[in-house]
Amino acid sequence: MSDATGSNVLESHDWMDSLDHQRLQAQMHFLLEIDALKSVLRATPIGNNERPENSAEHSWHLALFAVILAEHANDSVDIARVVRMLLLHDIVEIDSGDHPLHAPADPERDAKEQAAADRLFGLLPGDQRDEMRRLWDEFEAAESADARFAKAVDRLQPVLLNYQSGGGSWQAFDVSDSQVRERTGGIRNGSRVLWEMAGHVFAKARQRGWLRSGRSTSLK
Amino acid sequence: MSDATGSNVLESHDWMDSLDHQRLQAQMHFLLEIDALKSVLRATPIGNNERPENSAEHSWHLALFAVILAEHANDSVDIARVVRMLLLHDIVEIDSGDHPLHAPADPERDAKEQAAADRLFGLLPGDQRDEMRRLWDEFEAAESADARFAKAVDRLQPVLLNYQSGGGSWQAFDVSDSQVRERTGGIRNGSRVLWEMAGHVFAKARQRGWLRSGRSTSLK
Repeated sequence: MSDATGSNVLESHDWMDSLDHQRLQAQMHFLLEIDALKSVLRATPIGNNERPENSAEHSWHLALFAVILAEHANDSVDIARVVRMLLLHDIVEIDSGDHPLHAPADPERDAKEQAAADRLFGLLPGDQRDEMRRLWDEFEAAESADARFAKAVDRLQPVLLNYQSGGGSWQAFDVSDSQVRERTGGIRNGSRVLWEMAGHVFAKARQRGWLRSGRSTSLK
Repeated sequence: MSDATGSNVLESHDWMDSLDHQRLQAQMHFLLEIDALKSVLRATPIGNNERPENSAEHSWHLALFAVILAEHANDSVDIARVVRMLLLHDIVEIDSGDHPLHAPADPERDAKEQAAADRLFGLLPGDQRDEMRRLWDEFEAAESADARFAKAVDRLQPVLLNYQSGGGSWQAFDVSDSQVRERTGGIRNGSRVLWEMAGHVFAKARQRGWLRSGRSTSLK
């Protein structure tokens, strides 16, 4: 009785059989399916360094970063939209897995994530599918003010957790000071204030030996 | 180097020493302190039944429940406020621990949670401390339309995870059908549609033997 698993979706959703409300059924399918994001592990540890962070709790943390740090955005942003983007931005990882910032690029990543977005947002009723997909596309494009601030927060939080946990994924991937500045440089596009703050973290991490010196050849 | 712990807050925040921006420092203290919510475990398992859910990922899940299910609220609600309430509602558990719905009442619970709210929201700059505390107080009071819908979602999600995981905390606490209906009855105050849906889950859980029969003496 207690062996229902995430893959055993039909049985674990069988209470819906008696529910005469198709729209609500579709909404619940989506909401129960995304529970799997709690099992997607990231390269960054949680602050106490006891275990890797998962993408669901990461998304929660980012949403509160956005709420509390809104005033530091370069441009005027709609924080309710930023928060919704951040709550949704990682759900494609349920199918495609997390892709760590400092890992080698995966040429198939974009195709995998598009397929995942098709499947997952496709569980929703049509109007919500389109609305949520547009938010996700906007986040990915990182062009609007809201998306640039959301991206900034998504780049900033792991910097702080890596520091708080004593090196985190910087050490796992043998990351240099110049490499991390390059890969997180998008923070600047969302918030110059937060980018300046990140500089203090990098400088101290370098002092502590958690970021190695040395240059990335692609650094300008 | 990698032994920084959540309690070792001064060392893990030492990069702030060179930051000449007191307001941002206070905001960052709050945001790094609440990372500890990822280590507060709930009685309900995640959907695949592999481990207990933690309160941070729970809060993420609830926020998306609110976004997707907003149309089913009894009254007109401001979903951006509901989402912020849900993102914040459990952070007091960092100090006071989670209190499972089906566990015996703790007479000191309210005092512990008030002290936790004083400490945690008190890390923020004064204006944000007051704003976030008001949202938390409003959620706790469960009187406004926004708070009633937020509470409904907070009661509904564990029902679904208990079913999805094959009994979950219902079996751990030997819960009866009438007891769970009584303890989650607040769903009705936020959404009659979702309360009716929960009835389908309870009926099927009873059939499967995940809720025992029998009455709670306090059931009306």
